[in-house]
Amino acid sequence: MDFLIPYSTLLNSHLEKKLASKKEPTQLYEPINYIVRLGGKRLRPILTLMIADFFGDKKEEAINAAMAVELFHNFSLIHDDIMDDAPLRRGKETVHEKWDTNTGILSGDAMLILAYQLFEEYDATLFQQLAKLFSKTALEVCEGQQYDVDFETRDDVTILEYIKMIDCKTAVLIGAAMKMGAIVAEASESCQENIYEFGRNLGIAFQLQDDYLDAFGDPETFGKQVGGDIITNKKTFLYLTALQKSEQEESETLSHLFSIAPKDPTDKITTVKEIFKSSGAAEATVHEIEKYTRKANEVLNKVEISLENKTKLQEFGAWLMQRTV
Amino acid sequence: MDFLIPYSTLLNSHLEKKLASKKEPTQLYEPINYIVRLGGKRLRPILTLMIADFFGDKKEEAINAAMAVELFHNFSLIHDDIMDDAPLRRGKETVHEKWDTNTGILSGDAMLILAYQLFEEYDATLFQQLAKLFSKTALEVCEGQQYDVDFETRDDVTILEYIKMIDCKTAVLIGAAMKMGAIVAEASESCQENIYEFGRNLGIAFQLQDDYLDAFGDPETFGKQVGGDIITNKKTFLYLTALQKSEQEESETLSHLFSIAPKDPTDKITTVKEIFKSSGAAEATVHEIEKYTRKANEVLNKVEISLENKTKLQEFGAWLMQRTV
Repeated sequence: MDFLIPYSTLLNSHLEKKLASKKEPTQLYEPINYIVRLGGKRLRPILTLMIADFFGDKKEEAINAAMAVELFHNFSLIHDDIMDDAPLRRGKETVHEKWDTNTGILSGDAMLILAYQLFEEYDATLFQQLAKLFSKTALEVCEGQQYDVDFETRDDVTILEYIKMIDCKTAVLIGAAMKMGAIVAEASESCQENIYEFGRNLGIAFQLQDDYLDAFGDPETFGKQVGGDIITNKKTFLYLTALQKSEQEESETLSHLFSIAPKDPTDKITTVKEIFKSSGAAEATVHEIEKYTRKANEVLNKVEISLENKTKLQEFGAWLMQRTV
Repeated sequence: MDFLIPYSTLLNSHLEKKLASKKEPTQLYEPINYIVRLGGKRLRPILTLMIADFFGDKKEEAINAAMAVELFHNFSLIHDDIMDDAPLRRGKETVHEKWDTNTGILSGDAMLILAYQLFEEYDATLFQQLAKLFSKTALEVCEGQQYDVDFETRDDVTILEYIKMIDCKTAVLIGAAMKMGAIVAEASESCQENIYEFGRNLGIAFQLQDDYLDAFGDPETFGKQVGGDIITNKKTFLYLTALQKSEQEESETLSHLFSIAPKDPTDKITTVKEIFKSSGAAEATVHEIEKYTRKANEVLNKVEISLENKTKLQEFGAWLMQRTV
């Protein structure tokens, strides 16, 4: 995906400039620098820049919106990691592990506000459009996170509810990241909506992929703890589908395994993964990923941009779904 | 303070309407309703309405800005209470006690975003002005909270640093609440600045008063745990002044008491309060409260509003400082 590199370079240089200014109190701003500097793929803000470029040659103008998306994403990671009690993020200590929970709460709060401040560079009309979309999306992300938490203690989660949860928690932000690029480029409203739906469907595919890799990814390169969802008894698409598709005995084993939390989870992970495969849930998940990728491409066809740029977005979608780490 | 009642009534009816709409997921929105319904004096949003009224007869127009101020204040209470591990807020269980820490984090986050959304009702220009002031203030509140946390483990906090901390943590929000009223009323920039400084100085006086009442308030009516600051070894103006003013022996006793956390803090509280009085720190705090109230009134004189309304604001300031609970 060589065509992403210029966007990534542009973003990184501005993020670096943004982080370089020393601010007091240190304990508040250091964790913000730390988590942003952990890097990651930074796909969301790159999408903002790319869309602004494709829709109106406005990548430079989209930088602040892109950084807002990245700051928001990192804010949600800090707070989610506290809630999930996750030890690692991108292969490094999470903020609340490196500092403490209170630092994670407060630095996260500051980051959310800093994200809003980035829109202040735009004129009043763009500011309002961007901040409005940002707030709507941010609230949906909170709702998604709450559903995610709720599901951990519920036994009757449906596959539909699960899709709604990942839509809120993950997909809408990818849609919004793209739509912000379209807003900055002053694209038509229908263009804005179509690119939003493209990103959203791709986002659902992306999250299903992430769930899949959580079980079947390569521990060396995945960056997160492989089997993490199994350890925390998370009702992912894999689990819910396996429950539905497997024979009674297997299904009961699976239910039981998702009700316990053994100190050493190795055996649990192995058995669960076997059931995910034997029940056909692993394969069904791959199909579901393909379904949402297809939906994304269908709506992309309605977007009024050059065929060349459309192809790039399609390639991007395909690349996202083919990653194995 | 009868002239506050119409503002309070107006605010409460709109807040009630805002809370009445049932939203999913329940676990996210219930704690928001809970903390807002705990009530409290709601002085900050009332100030927004009052200033909008005094500056341009715009109290109705200021309702959303006022509610944003109240939601933000309650957001910060939820997150601060987690950080301080406080059991009570307004005499009732704190959110993280009634639910859990994760719920407190996430509901707080949602509340901060809901506060921003309230500005969406304004036209683009007002929206930008309000959201900009709001973000600046919210970030300062986070910084103030971080200084507050830092001070707990520092032995060299100066009185100046303490004033800066309460300025950020408490006073700027009172200034901003008033300035938002002035923005909605489309008052001149100098008016906006003067009313901001009025609120800010009053805010510092208010917080010093709060510190004073934490030690010397009436446990029946104070709403918070009396002696809470002493129990958590908080370096308040009272403590820092007492350290400076007392003889070596008393000062050493005080330092020692602020390094321990006895299971039963009754004796500690009694001794500390005695030193606060005998050293003259209690009296000095009362003087400092008067000093900032005077500063507030000086800047108020520069504000271009009717003498009648100026008098009301002065009365309000005086009333705030005379409260004994």
